[in-house]
Amino acid sequence: MDWLDEIKWDTNGLVPAIAQDAQTGKVLMMAWMNRESLQLTVDEGRAIYWSRSRQKLWRKGEESGHVQKLKDLRLDCDADVLLLSVEQLGGIACHTGRERCFYRQYQDGQWVETDVIIKDPAKIYE
Amino acid sequence: MDWLDEIKWDTNGLVPAIAQDAQTGKVLMMAWMNRESLQLTVDEGRAIYWSRSRQKLWRKGEESGHVQKLKDLRLDCDADVLLLSVEQLGGIACHTGRERCFYRQYQDGQWVETDVIIKDPAKIYE
Repeated sequence: MDWLDEIKWDTNGLVPAIAQDAQTGKVLMMAWMNRESLQLTVDEGRAIYWSRSRQKLWRKGEESGHVQKLKDLRLDCDADVLLLSVEQLGGIACHTGRERCFYRQYQDGQWVETDVIIKDPAKIYE
Repeated sequence: MDWLDEIKWDTNGLVPAIAQDAQTGKVLMMAWMNRESLQLTVDEGRAIYWSRSRQKLWRKGEESGHVQKLKDLRLDCDADVLLLSVEQLGGIACHTGRERCFYRQYQDGQWVETDVIIKDPAKIYE
C-alpha cells in the first residue's frame, strides 16, 4: 500500500500537521496538509501546508523566509495526525513574529501572552 | 471576555489539543476538546478530551490509569489549537502500549514502526 493511502484523510482530504523544533523540542505550530502538500513536503524536504483560508498550497516561509526544513516525519496510531520535526529558519514560526504560535498561556481564567515578538511582522512581510 | 469564548471552536464545537510530555518534550498525542472538556481539564488538572468516535467525554487514563496531569496550557495565534504540557502517568500515552502515538516514522516511502511496546494493551485494559 502506498504510504499516502495509509493516512486517514478527513472529509476535506486534510490531516493536522504539528511542527516541532528539532533543536529545542518546542511545539511551533499546527497547520493542515492534504495529499499533494505532504508529497511535496517529502519531495522538497520542507514543510508545505494546505491553507484552509486561502484554499491553496502554503509553502511555509515563501514570503517570510521562515522556511521549515524537514528533519523527521511521523504518523500517529490512528493515522490521522502528522508530526514534523523541523529546523526553523530565522527562529520564527509565527506570523506575529514570535518563535512559536503558542505564545499565550492559560493563567487563572485568562490567556496571557508570555512570548516576546522577535521581529516586527511589518518588517517580515515588507 | 471569557477565556473559553476567545477560542475559535470549529463547526463541531471542537479544537485540536496537542499533548506534550513536560519532562521529555516528546509530543505524545493529539486529540480533540470541546468547551466542556477543556473547562474540566482546567478544573481537574488533568487532560479530558472529547472522543469523536464515542461522542462523549474521554477522561484520559480512566481505564488505563495513564492519566495526563496538566502542567501548562497554551493557545495558538489563531486561537484554534491548544497545547498541553503534561506529566504522563505510567509513561505510556498510546492505547497500543507505546510511550507516544507517533511511533511510525517515514522512511523511503514507507511508515516504519520505531518505538517499542512498553506494555501489552491486553494487560493495560484487562
